[in-house]
Amino acid sequence: MLKYRQIAAKIEQDIRENDLAQGTKLPTFDALIQQYQVSKSTIVKALNILENRGVIYQIQGSGVFVRRRKRFGYVNMIENKGFTYDLDKFNITSKVLILEKVLPDLPVREHLNCQENDFVYHVKRMRYINGQILCIEDSFFNCQFIPYLNEEIIVESIFNYLKTALKLTVGFSDKYLHVIKLNDETSQLLELLPNDPALLTEEIFYLSSGQPFDYSRTTYHYEHSQFFLQSNSLDNF
Amino acid sequence: MLKYRQIAAKIEQDIRENDLAQGTKLPTFDALIQQYQVSKSTIVKALNILENRGVIYQIQGSGVFVRRRKRFGYVNMIENKGFTYDLDKFNITSKVLILEKVLPDLPVREHLNCQENDFVYHVKRMRYINGQILCIEDSFFNCQFIPYLNEEIIVESIFNYLKTALKLTVGFSDKYLHVIKLNDETSQLLELLPNDPALLTEEIFYLSSGQPFDYSRTTYHYEHSQFFLQSNSLDNF
Repeated sequence: MLKYRQIAAKIEQDIRENDLAQGTKLPTFDALIQQYQVSKSTIVKALNILENRGVIYQIQGSGVFVRRRKRFGYVNMIENKGFTYDLDKFNITSKVLILEKVLPDLPVREHLNCQENDFVYHVKRMRYINGQILCIEDSFFNCQFIPYLNEEIIVESIFNYLKTALKLTVGFSDKYLHVIKLNDETSQLLELLPNDPALLTEEIFYLSSGQPFDYSRTTYHYEHSQFFLQSNSLDNF
Repeated sequence: MLKYRQIAAKIEQDIRENDLAQGTKLPTFDALIQQYQVSKSTIVKALNILENRGVIYQIQGSGVFVRRRKRFGYVNMIENKGFTYDLDKFNITSKVLILEKVLPDLPVREHLNCQENDFVYHVKRMRYINGQILCIEDSFFNCQFIPYLNEEIIVESIFNYLKTALKLTVGFSDKYLHVIKLNDETSQLLELLPNDPALLTEEIFYLSSGQPFDYSRTTYHYEHSQFFLQSNSLDNF
């Protein structure tokens, strides 16, 4: 792990272990440089990671302060790399409904930036949170980057597999959200009624090289899912 | 405006005006330093703003690349500082339903971190997007920071007023999302039916000093609203 990530992880651990309240001032830059024996730029990078993650906030000329979550039990909308990472405090399990190698239809080609004869993996999974239905996830993976998947891999975290086995780095994602009424098929899978409400997300994940590799449509059970989102540096927008 | 923000705005403008495609490589750091006649740290700050806004992505050792939105007509979930800013390509209007100075109930006190006898402004507005109902917004503002509001202010952008008249800087926000079935009262206001689906968001806005000043509950018309969210540096999570 890079030095600044180690330091970011250490500072975050300190905040949690000491249960520091929102607004608690952290040591000064000089004190942090002293404590970790690294350069100022390493501390700056570590603090920027923590600010982006909503763990601290920085006030120009005043210092660095602790930021805490007010509520728990919510799915993080930004950190979500296929929840298993996200919700590791929860027990997330999966049931595979479909695993097949197919030729992509037009929306999939457009989102994955691939051609008619480029194969993709189509994976459809039910996801459960502490044994309750959380969502149905319909994903398409570009075989150019993910040449092989099997049931053993996809019943666990696909993203962990990409990272550890394929050594791929996830860079960023675009996510689109719609609130819908459930159709017959999806309501049956979610054990809800037709026309019940649902959140439908479409997400395109890109490698750090900028290439899209995963296009997923996820339909959430409205009674078993809730989400949070921390924004920061709103003044920059 | 601070120098690095000016440069960020200029780079973003260049990308839009030249309609640069996703993945287009931007000039090197050295070229940018040369072009804008500023220090490396100013360029770093400008690029970090643009990365946080989803305008570019940076690949360590390779360079800086253009990131473009795939779809338009979606409300930005992160940049949202009361839409007027966000959706300035759309025509957003408001109708004020309630404007009153009240003593806060328990949830409001908890979210705004204030006491039983600290007054708050309660503002309830219908918001319209291009003449269609977008949402109902129920907001509570801490009078300690916003001592005065009138209908003229709240029919426009409250956040612009905070920034320009009160010189307040918005720092960050916590947002919680739930999908719900509409009740009778809210469905009537949205001109929908009871039990129709809706997205309910609860958002707490903090000043850059870390103090909460606005707690808002917003219920969106599911047929007139859709959202997007750009994540970056997913590898840092």
